[in-house]
Amino acid sequence: MTEIGIGILGGGYMGKAHSVAMAAVGAVFNTALRPRLEMICASSVESAERYRAAYGFARATDNWRELVEDPKVGAIVVATPQSTHREIAEAAFALGKPVMCEKPMGADLADADAMVQAAEASGVANMVGYNYIRTPASQYARKLIAEGAIGDVTAFRGEHTEDFLADPNAPATWRTLGMANGTMGDLAPHMINGALALIGPIESLIAEVETIHKTRPGGAVTNDDHAQMMCRFENGVMGQMFFSRVAMGRKMGYAYEVTGTKGAIKFDQEDQNTIWLYKMDDPEAERGFRKVLTGPAHPDYEPFCQGPGHGTGYQDQIIIEARDFLHAIHSSQPVWPTFRDGLDVARIVHTALLSAKKRCWLNVSSKG
Amino acid sequence: MTEIGIGILGGGYMGKAHSVAMAAVGAVFNTALRPRLEMICASSVESAERYRAAYGFARATDNWRELVEDPKVGAIVVATPQSTHREIAEAAFALGKPVMCEKPMGADLADADAMVQAAEASGVANMVGYNYIRTPASQYARKLIAEGAIGDVTAFRGEHTEDFLADPNAPATWRTLGMANGTMGDLAPHMINGALALIGPIESLIAEVETIHKTRPGGAVTNDDHAQMMCRFENGVMGQMFFSRVAMGRKMGYAYEVTGTKGAIKFDQEDQNTIWLYKMDDPEAERGFRKVLTGPAHPDYEPFCQGPGHGTGYQDQIIIEARDFLHAIHSSQPVWPTFRDGLDVARIVHTALLSAKKRCWLNVSSKG
Amino acid sequence: MTEIGIGILGGGYMGKAHSVAMAAVGAVFNTALRPRLEMICASSVESAERYRAAYGFARATDNWRELVEDPKVGAIVVATPQSTHREIAEAAFALGKPVMCEKPMGADLADADAMVQAAEASGVANMVGYNYIRTPASQYARKLIAEGAIGDVTAFRGEHTEDFLADPNAPATWRTLGMANGTMGDLAPHMINGALALIGPIESLIAEVETIHKTRPGGAVTNDDHAQMMCRFENGVMGQMFFSRVAMGRKMGYAYEVTGTKGAIKFDQEDQNTIWLYKMDDPEAERGFRKVLTGPAHPDYEPFCQGPGHGTGYQDQIIIEARDFLHAIHSSQPVWPTFRDGLDVARIVHTALLSAKKRCWLNVSSKG
Amino acid sequence: MTEIGIGILGGGYMGKAHSVAMAAVGAVFNTALRPRLEMICASSVESAERYRAAYGFARATDNWRELVEDPKVGAIVVATPQSTHREIAEAAFALGKPVMCEKPMGADLADADAMVQAAEASGVANMVGYNYIRTPASQYARKLIAEGAIGDVTAFRGEHTEDFLADPNAPATWRTLGMANGTMGDLAPHMINGALALIGPIESLIAEVETIHKTRPGGAVTNDDHAQMMCRFENGVMGQMFFSRVAMGRKMGYAYEVTGTKGAIKFDQEDQNTIWLYKMDDPEAERGFRKVLTGPAHPDYEPFCQGPGHGTGYQDQIIIEARDFLHAIHSSQPVWPTFRDGLDVARIVHTALLSAKKRCWLNVSSKG
Repeated sequence: MTEIGIGILGGGYMGKAHSVAMAAVGAVFNTALRPRLEMICASSVESAERYRAAYGFARATDNWRELVEDPKVGAIVVATPQSTHREIAEAAFALGKPVMCEKPMGADLADADAMVQAAEASGVANMVGYNYIRTPASQYARKLIAEGAIGDVTAFRGEHTEDFLADPNAPATWRTLGMANGTMGDLAPHMINGALALIGPIESLIAEVETIHKTRPGGAVTNDDHAQMMCRFENGVMGQMFFSRVAMGRKMGYAYEVTGTKGAIKFDQEDQNTIWLYKMDDPEAERGFRKVLTGPAHPDYEPFCQGPGHGTGYQDQIIIEARDFLHAIHSSQPVWPTFRDGLDVARIVHTALLSAKKRCWLNVSSKG
Repeated sequence: MTEIGIGILGGGYMGKAHSVAMAAVGAVFNTALRPRLEMICASSVESAERYRAAYGFARATDNWRELVEDPKVGAIVVATPQSTHREIAEAAFALGKPVMCEKPMGADLADADAMVQAAEASGVANMVGYNYIRTPASQYARKLIAEGAIGDVTAFRGEHTEDFLADPNAPATWRTLGMANGTMGDLAPHMINGALALIGPIESLIAEVETIHKTRPGGAVTNDDHAQMMCRFENGVMGQMFFSRVAMGRKMGYAYEVTGTKGAIKFDQEDQNTIWLYKMDDPEAERGFRKVLTGPAHPDYEPFCQGPGHGTGYQDQIIIEARDFLHAIHSSQPVWPTFRDGLDVARIVHTALLSAKKRCWLNVSSKG
Repeated sequence: MTEIGIGILGGGYMGKAHSVAMAAVGAVFNTALRPRLEMICASSVESAERYRAAYGFARATDNWRELVEDPKVGAIVVATPQSTHREIAEAAFALGKPVMCEKPMGADLADADAMVQAAEASGVANMVGYNYIRTPASQYARKLIAEGAIGDVTAFRGEHTEDFLADPNAPATWRTLGMANGTMGDLAPHMINGALALIGPIESLIAEVETIHKTRPGGAVTNDDHAQMMCRFENGVMGQMFFSRVAMGRKMGYAYEVTGTKGAIKFDQEDQNTIWLYKMDDPEAERGFRKVLTGPAHPDYEPFCQGPGHGTGYQDQIIIEARDFLHAIHSSQPVWPTFRDGLDVARIVHTALLSAKKRCWLNVSSKG
Repeated sequence: MTEIGIGILGGGYMGKAHSVAMAAVGAVFNTALRPRLEMICASSVESAERYRAAYGFARATDNWRELVEDPKVGAIVVATPQSTHREIAEAAFALGKPVMCEKPMGADLADADAMVQAAEASGVANMVGYNYIRTPASQYARKLIAEGAIGDVTAFRGEHTEDFLADPNAPATWRTLGMANGTMGDLAPHMINGALALIGPIESLIAEVETIHKTRPGGAVTNDDHAQMMCRFENGVMGQMFFSRVAMGRKMGYAYEVTGTKGAIKFDQEDQNTIWLYKMDDPEAERGFRKVLTGPAHPDYEPFCQGPGHGTGYQDQIIIEARDFLHAIHSSQPVWPTFRDGLDVARIVHTALLSAKKRCWLNVSSKG
């Protein structure tokens, strides 16, 4: 068993999730490479120290370069605001240190592109944090589709809907400023990444964005609340997506329905332990969507529990992600989604925002 | 109590539904005007006689003009193929006889437009058969939205999905020929009508159609299997719709989600006795979509049953429709949706098919 | 086609349901025997006349004997309070007139027993109105079990739960007086009848009853709100049932789960168009309860609609019942559940109430 | 921050779950007392060493006494077969070491009783591993009931159903031998504990047990597959429960419905992130079970994720349990359920098995 020192940048929502994941992943997955919580970085010395003590890191800092350059830090997890991702990643790659970066990759397409250059120049492990596609259910959906269990896919409908800003009186924050932090920039990438994983590359699209609450206590809102698109995948599949942070009633609406020529699959992250499978070859009177509860027969479930239907949760997705990142480092094999895969998502977001402006169908250029 | 002789054209799927509805509606709703099953018309003398005997009509014919002109026939229900709707309706209106016409109104926008002219010139009752919006649940949704129960609507997502042609080996029929019989022409109108009822007029849209199975046993397919659109309503609401007759697993997927600034509503016709209502003003820990079972507290439920949750079904929607048509005749007051309301749907279908060809956003001209 | 004059006793909840059913059944099922709404009886001349006009009967009376003895009345539907069932049924049978009687059969086991004697002595058609078991879904469940689709049944769990008296301030009425009108006497019979149909005869049982709200505005309550039992069927199946009229939140909780050695079936009347089927022989990863929407592939669905998932409702159950009654008359063949079948239910209710008193397991004597 | 050395006995299903929980709990809950994975014990040196390496313990042994007596082991988690629980617990308590013991407490009521004596004599922290009641949803249900949100409880229905032995060809194992390992002995305790937590002490009960598959490949089965009971709680609430390990289709059927005079609560562990709440004081037309997704507004959710509806899973329940155990040790305050609470469950199981033999209602003696 080999150990690696982990440095995590950011100690809030995702920083904590990654810290817990690194604490648990070895025991859950019996990983060949074992993470050691070496250093955490936050915006002040005080908060960094608070996170260090809470999560069990050896050391704390408010200086991201110190963390990246520390000789005991062997791999980096970036969970800071997205405008900082590029600089940090570039620094880490320059030192030959593997990076797992939270989604979306950077502040814009140029960032994402530069980050891919840096990652690929370094040759070390690099991964983007799309956790939702890692549930046993969605991994299984991906496998079913790839194996042709529902025939040829003919239509994809997806959404990523939450309502954390649905209350008009929720104050203006960094989240309500800048397209990169809006619904299309920040929330849609999860489902776009999911669509790419389930169906394949997107060829063309037409999108719309809208700001429902144009001012909030504390100031004007400069990015979008709702966003939607229609698209065509390269394999001809018709696609439709909706994204929102003001979708009243939806808490974790990462949901999709995949229609095929022999069956169909439905999933809703709000019931993440269920995958709905319809097969045309069941006898007509017995035909219906099967409510399949995930269990040891599904990908990455058994390490969490030997009993089917006992369920995995949000934190478990991050643990799976940590396992993948450690595996990428240890095996020197890229693990999906790499920075290049993340760039594909960034390119679609970029095209969608452009399409929303021009109000027309646009091809998703394969060269950014 | 006054009686009126009813003549129904067509004895198949919808012809039967309307016949049963006319047999039952008086007892269910204690209508002021009572229908008498006077005459039924079908494509041959034999089938007409068979329908007559089965449904309990007094007389049968294979000549639609004979039915329309019969002095004992006081009102007409048109349930023949849509290419015949216009001629029949025009003849009936010319004689001053009220017409309930199955959806969609005619073979194309020109038909629909002409039918409105004829209807309005006659001044008699005219109605289009959009039954799904008449469930107690959808009537209640409409009422909730109109009363502001979910605040200002900000997004509408709808679908009308079935899978009756999902099997690639289902043979080519009249349904697979001609845009008017395709998914956008024939299936989408139900949900478009629903969207207009729930949200209001549509201002602009962009649509796509696609034929998944281009040939079927028996010949080529000349109309669309899947169709989708994004739209803007005149009140600014963002809309998204998907329609399909090959949506594997979906049997009666007339479903919508309406997002508002104070709540949300979800409905799926496959569970037509449930309406899901979310209200932001519930305390946070108790907040969730309420699974409301329809009952006497909801529109047009009690005449079918005094017990809540006991449920209404497909046939009951047609009975409600019959009640409305009889009321329109008896009161000389137009009942929604009139032919003019049906024309609005036809115009949107027309614009959507044009948009699909041009691949761009189009305004829905208010003048067809 | 032959006609038969129908006389209905009672014009309220069930009287109306049967009236509408008789108006519609011919058109829906193309019955060989056609009902003619001949006479309706209610407690006063005024209400009888009101019902007559509303439902479309030829004549009205407040004298039940007049109706029963009327020469134009060929068959009787009894929808009066249950204490009157016996006398009416006996009179009708004495005249050789077929009777459909609402459940439960009479006021007590002695009534039920006497009614069976009268029915069998007359030799004419007799049927008890257990409508819920007649949904396409429950008929299909019954068929699946009978065919061994889920292997040998090992456990049955059922409930009939509603909440129409859940509000403590709901006033005392005839419903709150007398064991025959309590939950075990009046509500449980539906599910007991369902259990007998799905699983087979009950051998022994132990039961409990309880009055939750012992007084209500208007007086004391003398019968039970909640009731429960455990039982053994003759085939050894373990059973458990719960019944309530104060089951807050439940509107039409006629629900059951049948566990077998090869599969399982779940049903809830609140979503009466869905039957859930689990089959052990599906591959493990694809195994789950199938949400099967009823359609033309299921019993008695197609006459109501050719499209699957379009749904039937409460009134349709009564129409199916009317078809069965007419068929029993026309064919001179008994149609389940006959009065004798109804007696089986009465005997179980009787035993359950006795068991609740004695607080011990009791055998259900096959001889009452 | 203080550290404590943890020794875990058993490395399989639950042994792993507790190991992962101890690895993660500090970071998740920022516990005052921090666990150190000191030693793991398994049935052979080889398996112990394998578990040690996999889960990250410092040392391994196949000698449970060595673990219990080790000076660096400050607290014990017992996850061995239940017949061994008593001896281990007694040894640990004799040394003044806190014990968390998997359910059920011991092989029988005598074991449980002795274990309580030992625990209380020692005065150190002691806890039983009932994890399901620790989901945010069930904790919230407990809170709602305690606060009177649904009024006075009038009925409780619960089940614990799985199907891991539903296949008749599943081989005989230790699980199919001995009443303590049967459904009533081993599976029912979870839901019985839940019932006690939600409703209160049980006063009397009548139960049944049954072995569906009496022989299996490898030998005879000597314990029960199905079990059921009716009961009365001390507060008068009527109860009904069903337990099974052959409940085809059910994977994690820890489910309950609590009926009150002002509302109701429903829960099913197969969708553990949802609690269904019905409130009578909603306006009638808007009344329905609310599908509440757990989130930061619910107990013990936020440490796992700041976003509502993102979901917790099986492993998270064990982490919550670890937090509670550490808190009990650190604060020297008993944390529910203590061994004495576990004894209450054992007493009910004991009474139920006796009742099944005697086929009569039995009081649950408060003195075992």
